[in-house]
Amino acid sequence: MDDLLVARLREGLPVEAVLTDPDVTVAYARDRAGFCPAGVPAAVVVARTVDQVRHTLRTATELGVPVVPQGARTGLSGAANAADGWLVLSLARMDRILEIDPVNRIAVVEPGVVNADLTRAVQVHGLTYPPDPSSWEECTIGGNIATGSGGLCCVKYGVTAEYVLGLKVVLGDGRLLRTGRRTAKGVAGYDLTRLFVGSEGTLGVVVGAVLALRPLPPPQLVLAAEFPSARAAGEAVCAVMTAGHTPAMLELMDATSIRAVNTLLHMGLPPTTEALLLIASDGPDPAAELSALAELCTAAGATTVVPADTVAESELLLAARRSALVALDAVKGASMIDDVCVPRDRLADLLEGVAAIGARHGLTIGVCAHAGDGNTHPTVCFDPADADEGRRARESFDEIMALGLELGGTITGEHGVGVLKKEWLARELGPVGVEVQRRLREAFDPAGILNPGKVL
Amino acid sequence: MDDLLVARLREGLPVEAVLTDPDVTVAYARDRAGFCPAGVPAAVVVARTVDQVRHTLRTATELGVPVVPQGARTGLSGAANAADGWLVLSLARMDRILEIDPVNRIAVVEPGVVNADLTRAVQVHGLTYPPDPSSWEECTIGGNIATGSGGLCCVKYGVTAEYVLGLKVVLGDGRLLRTGRRTAKGVAGYDLTRLFVGSEGTLGVVVGAVLALRPLPPPQLVLAAEFPSARAAGEAVCAVMTAGHTPAMLELMDATSIRAVNTLLHMGLPPTTEALLLIASDGPDPAAELSALAELCTAAGATTVVPADTVAESELLLAARRSALVALDAVKGASMIDDVCVPRDRLADLLEGVAAIGARHGLTIGVCAHAGDGNTHPTVCFDPADADEGRRARESFDEIMALGLELGGTITGEHGVGVLKKEWLARELGPVGVEVQRRLREAFDPAGILNPGKVL
Repeated sequence: MDDLLVARLREGLPVEAVLTDPDVTVAYARDRAGFCPAGVPAAVVVARTVDQVRHTLRTATELGVPVVPQGARTGLSGAANAADGWLVLSLARMDRILEIDPVNRIAVVEPGVVNADLTRAVQVHGLTYPPDPSSWEECTIGGNIATGSGGLCCVKYGVTAEYVLGLKVVLGDGRLLRTGRRTAKGVAGYDLTRLFVGSEGTLGVVVGAVLALRPLPPPQLVLAAEFPSARAAGEAVCAVMTAGHTPAMLELMDATSIRAVNTLLHMGLPPTTEALLLIASDGPDPAAELSALAELCTAAGATTVVPADTVAESELLLAARRSALVALDAVKGASMIDDVCVPRDRLADLLEGVAAIGARHGLTIGVCAHAGDGNTHPTVCFDPADADEGRRARESFDEIMALGLELGGTITGEHGVGVLKKEWLARELGPVGVEVQRRLREAFDPAGILNPGKVL
Repeated sequence: MDDLLVARLREGLPVEAVLTDPDVTVAYARDRAGFCPAGVPAAVVVARTVDQVRHTLRTATELGVPVVPQGARTGLSGAANAADGWLVLSLARMDRILEIDPVNRIAVVEPGVVNADLTRAVQVHGLTYPPDPSSWEECTIGGNIATGSGGLCCVKYGVTAEYVLGLKVVLGDGRLLRTGRRTAKGVAGYDLTRLFVGSEGTLGVVVGAVLALRPLPPPQLVLAAEFPSARAAGEAVCAVMTAGHTPAMLELMDATSIRAVNTLLHMGLPPTTEALLLIASDGPDPAAELSALAELCTAAGATTVVPADTVAESELLLAARRSALVALDAVKGASMIDDVCVPRDRLADLLEGVAAIGARHGLTIGVCAHAGDGNTHPTVCFDPADADEGRRARESFDEIMALGLELGGTITGEHGVGVLKKEWLARELGPVGVEVQRRLREAFDPAGILNPGKVL
């Protein structure tokens, strides 16, 4: 079967596009999610053109071989994982920026363009592509679209879905579908564009995208505010938003995350504080806005409030925040990052609940959060050599999602469902939601070859 | 059949909720689109609760009676039109604002809430609901969601789709589906919420919505700039956007619209100019921004640039713009408003092309446009008593859509497809797009009772 697959693939693909050496293909087995099964693919196609993608999918349909599309495999839910005998379709080499149009504020890109490369390319034109997942130096636009990525700037600038205007998609049977538009507005037919955003490769394979850009904002300044409790920090977040501010960033690090970053990187974050808020302003007068924000933090109980005087100081604070996941991973050798989003006035409840879950299971759980959005990343640290600790880590991970749902939130703010959260998706959607989503999926992929077993 | 339908409806509905008197039901036959067929409904249900909607749809499915959901019937594409023997389901009386939550910046509403009522209600909390279709004093949120409404503020604040976080929807078979979330972010499963936005009542009936709100911006100031040609005005629009401005509004009126408004309302708009731009700033220093915008207009060839000194003066200019459609309708007694959106650097081409179409058919066509979005409303004036002029009006209307597609645009920026633009939708989507959209529709409404014959 594998031989037939490879032979058929090669009928329409250059030799170097089809990888079969297990020593090579093993690298394409999985993304960065823990606790997700992954197997050995039968072959990996590294596509460079739309026609190559079409041939690949036609072949897969003909032979009934499941296909998993991949970008940079930086995902955190196992959506890009292969299974034994599957075909991996890598879009990472379709990495050309085809067009940057400053008048219409759009970029036209292939799916393999790296997020940060696009950001830098449009910057030259005084523009920016806001969505900025932590993996932005590696992750691809196609992957961002597949997972509906967020990032640090979403509180002011929104998520990936807000920036995808139109798509070129190859369907499971190899047909090419164009969705959406190049214009600022458009309501012609059902919004398939946004349906593909976050669909994790289960409805079709994105081979091109028209993206909206924004004028580049001025450099941001960051304020660091220390709080004696998660609750006080949560109150400050609510106070900031209720007062009508929309910071360019509103991030939270708890004591565990701060200590982890200090241990790993010696960044000199305040070691005794219970919760740190990093609040950025990129408004016309950032110093003035930061001073208003500082007052709100103080009123909410902040013990220390330090505005960065320079952009360089601000970057340093953000670098600390961005390194939190790596630092938490180093605490015990492994970690599982959760992605629960709650209404922002339930942030403190979530943080306290996570602390209780950690205490109950005897585990270290650090929390970073895109606090302005209520999007938390409780990260469960565990020793990968300790099976019992691993089991407790997984239990805590699940309990955190249950808590998120109980607080009116969602099991995933920006990382997606993949295989990691499939069962939890069913709990969030309920039976009618699951049934409708299944029917919808079948309408797009009647043969069931597109990333089966992912999402639902 | 009608008797059976009414009897079954009344089993689960109060007497006053089921209207059958033809003198009354005739008022529910159509929305505001011209050239669209409409028939006499068998009955009208005026629902007040979710359970009443569920009973209505269960009954319709059981008896195989097509249902058309309606809000305020201010739509412009015939999507809300009934046909003979259909059931009209009016959501206009489900008009409660259930919750306004300033901390999370959301409102929870029933579908019949009038757009302007919501805007005023949230204003008290220092918040706003931006989407502002011209009919905002009448149109309902449910109708806005069904059609994916835009408005004047979209260039800065986006369209309806950007503000719908979650929905309660009754499916054709009466089941209740919840989509989306109350949180700022969320990617749990396929984005059904945005799929329902713009689906014109063909996938399900929206009975509740969680809407995102924004902090109320400061009052805006408006600049009026007169241009000697459509091309010069189009160049000014490009210059404004390329320079990194995002005005709160960027509207265009052509000479025909200006004259029509002056004739009807004696508003003293400049009578000899070829194109007028109205540009609004609601930034922290609107006067300074207007002065930068004025320079860009002058450089693009504006003959006169007049910044409004006061908010009252600004409101007057916008009132003139908002009255353009009524004024154009009065020119010959009837009009057809088109809704073509093009890349903003093709705006001048569109305007010149429309003028040529009008000249060829011997018709008056006035153009207003949300110029910052490239979203134009060429409005074909005709005498409803003159059959030949009516025919030519319809031809011009179609030629304008063809021109829009040719310029890389879409046949509808914000009014939707309904019955008016069905054939044109097929041209825009192409055969694969149509087939996928049809399959998707069948997945949601296998019985085919939801607003059949609309969209596609």
